[in-house]
Amino acid sequence: MIIVLKPDATKKQVNHIVEKVKKLGLKPWVSQGAERTIIGVIGAEDILRIQPLEVFPGVERVMPILKPYKLVSRDFKKEDSVIDLGNGVEIGSNKIVVMAGPCSVENKDLLIDIARKVKAAGASVLRGGAFKPRTSPYAFQGLGEEGLKYLAEARRETGLLVVTELMDLRELELVEKYTDIIQIGARNMQNFDLLKEVGKSKKTVLLKRGMANTIKELLMSAEYILSGGNFNVILCERGIRTFEDYTRNTLDISAILAVKFLSHLPVVVDPSHAAGKWSLVPALSKAAVAAGCDGLIVEVHTHPEEALSDGAQSLLPEKFSQMMRELRVLVKAVNREM
Amino acid sequence: MIIVLKPDATKKQVNHIVEKVKKLGLKPWVSQGAERTIIGVIGAEDILRIQPLEVFPGVERVMPILKPYKLVSRDFKKEDSVIDLGNGVEIGSNKIVVMAGPCSVENKDLLIDIARKVKAAGASVLRGGAFKPRTSPYAFQGLGEEGLKYLAEARRETGLLVVTELMDLRELELVEKYTDIIQIGARNMQNFDLLKEVGKSKKTVLLKRGMANTIKELLMSAEYILSGGNFNVILCERGIRTFEDYTRNTLDISAILAVKFLSHLPVVVDPSHAAGKWSLVPALSKAAVAAGCDGLIVEVHTHPEEALSDGAQSLLPEKFSQMMRELRVLVKAVNREM
Amino acid sequence: MIIVLKPDATKKQVNHIVEKVKKLGLKPWVSQGAERTIIGVIGAEDILRIQPLEVFPGVERVMPILKPYKLVSRDFKKEDSVIDLGNGVEIGSNKIVVMAGPCSVENKDLLIDIARKVKAAGASVLRGGAFKPRTSPYAFQGLGEEGLKYLAEARRETGLLVVTELMDLRELELVEKYTDIIQIGARNMQNFDLLKEVGKSKKTVLLKRGMANTIKELLMSAEYILSGGNFNVILCERGIRTFEDYTRNTLDISAILAVKFLSHLPVVVDPSHAAGKWSLVPALSKAAVAAGCDGLIVEVHTHPEEALSDGAQSLLPEKFSQMMRELRVLVKAVNREM
Amino acid sequence: MIIVLKPDATKKQVNHIVEKVKKLGLKPWVSQGAERTIIGVIGAEDILRIQPLEVFPGVERVMPILKPYKLVSRDFKKEDSVIDLGNGVEIGSNKIVVMAGPCSVENKDLLIDIARKVKAAGASVLRGGAFKPRTSPYAFQGLGEEGLKYLAEARRETGLLVVTELMDLRELELVEKYTDIIQIGARNMQNFDLLKEVGKSKKTVLLKRGMANTIKELLMSAEYILSGGNFNVILCERGIRTFEDYTRNTLDISAILAVKFLSHLPVVVDPSHAAGKWSLVPALSKAAVAAGCDGLIVEVHTHPEEALSDGAQSLLPEKFSQMMRELRVLVKAVNREM
Repeated sequence: MIIVLKPDATKKQVNHIVEKVKKLGLKPWVSQGAERTIIGVIGAEDILRIQPLEVFPGVERVMPILKPYKLVSRDFKKEDSVIDLGNGVEIGSNKIVVMAGPCSVENKDLLIDIARKVKAAGASVLRGGAFKPRTSPYAFQGLGEEGLKYLAEARRETGLLVVTELMDLRELELVEKYTDIIQIGARNMQNFDLLKEVGKSKKTVLLKRGMANTIKELLMSAEYILSGGNFNVILCERGIRTFEDYTRNTLDISAILAVKFLSHLPVVVDPSHAAGKWSLVPALSKAAVAAGCDGLIVEVHTHPEEALSDGAQSLLPEKFSQMMRELRVLVKAVNREM
Repeated sequence: MIIVLKPDATKKQVNHIVEKVKKLGLKPWVSQGAERTIIGVIGAEDILRIQPLEVFPGVERVMPILKPYKLVSRDFKKEDSVIDLGNGVEIGSNKIVVMAGPCSVENKDLLIDIARKVKAAGASVLRGGAFKPRTSPYAFQGLGEEGLKYLAEARRETGLLVVTELMDLRELELVEKYTDIIQIGARNMQNFDLLKEVGKSKKTVLLKRGMANTIKELLMSAEYILSGGNFNVILCERGIRTFEDYTRNTLDISAILAVKFLSHLPVVVDPSHAAGKWSLVPALSKAAVAAGCDGLIVEVHTHPEEALSDGAQSLLPEKFSQMMRELRVLVKAVNREM
Repeated sequence: MIIVLKPDATKKQVNHIVEKVKKLGLKPWVSQGAERTIIGVIGAEDILRIQPLEVFPGVERVMPILKPYKLVSRDFKKEDSVIDLGNGVEIGSNKIVVMAGPCSVENKDLLIDIARKVKAAGASVLRGGAFKPRTSPYAFQGLGEEGLKYLAEARRETGLLVVTELMDLRELELVEKYTDIIQIGARNMQNFDLLKEVGKSKKTVLLKRGMANTIKELLMSAEYILSGGNFNVILCERGIRTFEDYTRNTLDISAILAVKFLSHLPVVVDPSHAAGKWSLVPALSKAAVAAGCDGLIVEVHTHPEEALSDGAQSLLPEKFSQMMRELRVLVKAVNREM
Repeated sequence: MIIVLKPDATKKQVNHIVEKVKKLGLKPWVSQGAERTIIGVIGAEDILRIQPLEVFPGVERVMPILKPYKLVSRDFKKEDSVIDLGNGVEIGSNKIVVMAGPCSVENKDLLIDIARKVKAAGASVLRGGAFKPRTSPYAFQGLGEEGLKYLAEARRETGLLVVTELMDLRELELVEKYTDIIQIGARNMQNFDLLKEVGKSKKTVLLKRGMANTIKELLMSAEYILSGGNFNVILCERGIRTFEDYTRNTLDISAILAVKFLSHLPVVVDPSHAAGKWSLVPALSKAAVAAGCDGLIVEVHTHPEEALSDGAQSLLPEKFSQMMRELRVLVKAVNREM
């Protein structure tokens, strides 16, 4: 921690801070320059981080040196985490995992039909929402447990793994019962009680980045889950909110690299929610793979004109198949597999 | 709803959309210009809003005409809503309500001391968090029920009303029991299950705008609560996330005006969280009152150097008193009371 | 400057940096903690700032301690700068200066009529554009020198001072000839050649913040002008670009405070361009005054329905007069004059 | 143009607008719904766009239907524009063009050495700045004409084409004399006088997107150049400003697709300025190619530790060569050439 003092900070003010730091059991050093005095405290930044040093008289600025996350950090674990998703599917290795399916689970036959088609095209995980976070209270809110049952049935029929969103922590057991991967949506990335609950779960968690959250905050939210004992966390970049309105959100392609530099956790990309338009999904998927992501989560629907949510960003199965064929060529060019 | 077709849309595509709209029981009209054909459907926008019209062949863009919210809208209720908070305090009238107190409830004596001081300065509501949404799992998470009890005791001691944050819907009953106003924090503005639950409560809800949420989305989240039957909702502007980093967030002062134009609900401003620095709080409070807000929620702490959270943005009681004296002059100049 | 090394930085890498710093004539110190080594260099930050220290092997991060601007800084000059604008008008003192007029100069009679009306209402500076920065090449681009002549005539008729925008440095002499204050628009805030030219002028410069520029960058752009020898610079907050679309830009009310903390230069607010809607202008003007600005620059037009640019955000003279009456009450409440 | 009226708009107000539209020679139609009346005017949107319809009494909102740009639009020209850059190099075809070189031209030998190395690696255009837009007036401002001469000499030595930035329109002739492609930097994207000048030039223009400018605004700025008679314009995505601070700017990868959908002009990507860190450049370059860009512009420096600007984001020649080798494999996988 570096504490920068104001140009007119008094000796008394410097001593007051030095005393405070010493009382916390830490060893400060003071460096006096012509224009500013600074106080440095190396190590044990956790103890200092929770002290409001900015309010001490004479302080101009406080600059942390260490990262506020630990368990998710590359410093903690050098090699990439590879998570076993079940069914012989793993993520974080050289092999790219594709998750696909409708935005919402709407009815059983439709879901199973879509599941078969995405499986045939090469997906290994079926996505589909039973509980839907909708901006409007008047929009379709999802089928609830019925939807979860359909997902489980689609899994039995196709052998696909299943990922679905958990919104309400009272439904954790239910979601655990029917699915393989629990998704925490962008709007709940900082729902800390929910994070604590899934931190106690044995299921893999797919944690989506919030629309206005930094990569550091995404890692801090993952830290909640790991510190609860659940190390099976997949991070997901799904676009951030900016002034640009051609796309629904701005896909932050650099976030893939940032996560890989800073953390050992696998990272997937959701081009459908980022773009909000199906026509951009294939090219964004290719860009994500070329940038080094470990997987994709893509919306596919057989009848987007009838979809109860997010029809505009859903690929038709034939477009999805074509994209998968093109990706298969691409992954080789970047030394990955699929 | 206005549906703009692509320049090369075929007659068949136009008819396909017209048929679809008619099947929904609506009456479309078609207007053909030199460069674009458009299809208009006036009224009953709710039915169309959930149709993914963008995916219909030939469609370039879909533009809604009506607002997606109803109960919170000025169209629904022309006059300002005035909410009775209890104890003879009401919000939304000509009188400005000031809520003040520490970020977190830390211990009983400290809380009661702060409560007495903010009351003496003119506050009518005590704020204080028992459950704290912290970015880091290693930071102080709040005292829980113990904290709620201290708040209740401070209320008994001072006669102040109490507002506190609810994060976990399993704790709704507990929070209802001890407090007067339930705060939904910025990070939970789109935690729709939580909104549905407080929509069933009898308590007034203080709904904070999310850091990356538009005013329209804030109103949609309030609509969740009103549509659940609870019309006692106060909106709160607390800064949005932008590229500027001098302040922690950018206080969107225009949001006060926007809410007043679009909705009948009262709006308060939280300058402490917006700025992240106590030294900006008095001037931002004045700006908010001058712009027309109905109240303020301000962090005050007797020992910011020892605060367990947000010390840097807490005013000392004497600074708060001075600010209140200055505000008392200001409110008269803008024809309000305090 | 604080140079933070990577956890695995070698002794050789540390020495390489220490040698480099010494070669520049500076005195580094090294501090080794359990988790990180850091190298500090106090003072003479200018020399280091232009070294790409981030690329030295072993470096994780470089953190500057000192501010990159000098002449505009409060450290350089403690007391507020008061600029004499001529005609007995000064800005930066206790008295608030109001600049008002049409977006563009459209014709002589209209301009003089508006000038008379804003003067009667209490403005002391007439604003009006002769050269207009328009997003579209097909939009009205301004009357050019003819417009400048009308401004000069309006000045003769009314005694108002005149502010107008300079876009093209080839027209500096022309603009200097006809006006009192040269405006550098938001889109040219980082047009460094233009800044250098007005740095050599004797005229006061009104420097608008760019839509996506930080307060620090605004101060750096002002530094260009002061370092050229022209200390008569007024800063202007006019809204920044964010995701919110209710207003055209988001007025960053805290920027007023930030500028006042960091710099001695006067700061004015342009609520018209920030909001993009005339109905928000009076309340935003009040908020700006309450927050502590030194002046306002407001668009006023007698026939907004016929305006060639920005009609939607122009106040009618009678609305402007009413706003001025209300502001006159408000300024007293915040111990200012008008 | 769709004009949406307020719920309480009077018949007189509707007629007033209808009359105004008719006076402009256009044919409005009126559609009355249960909740709103709307007035539509199809075609000739240019005439209406400059009318401040929002200020007419009774108007709630005005929604344009047509795009404000013409010459740059896909509607104007269906097929991709292919620009002949000279030396047998063209951009906009199936072949990807790589531009590389130092941020600033620093001295002749260094420049020629870098030029040889980037040519050997496969670049066909040399980049290098002689006039540098620097945030600080105290930073290196470029070598000026001397730098241009070195660029010309590097061109003679290597056969590479040359691109360099023009900041000051007084230097257009100079820059035209020595270079093949004129770069308009991000900070000058809305310097409309500069755009008008290069619109009269015969040289190809590389127009960079401003940090806070939408894709629509980028196209409008290009429209300035095309409407001046110069159709040889290359657009460049180089990152936008967001709240995320891991990268210097957020590379908007979707902008490549948006430009390709909306316009016929070629688009290149600058990963160096977007990321601000050399380590991200190779992966971002791959992502850009996979997404469908027509070229890359990359900073390369033999001695980044000594670079006078942007050292932190410059690739060493050997890293650049390796990246080019990897890109050569990738371009085949996406059916492009290099």
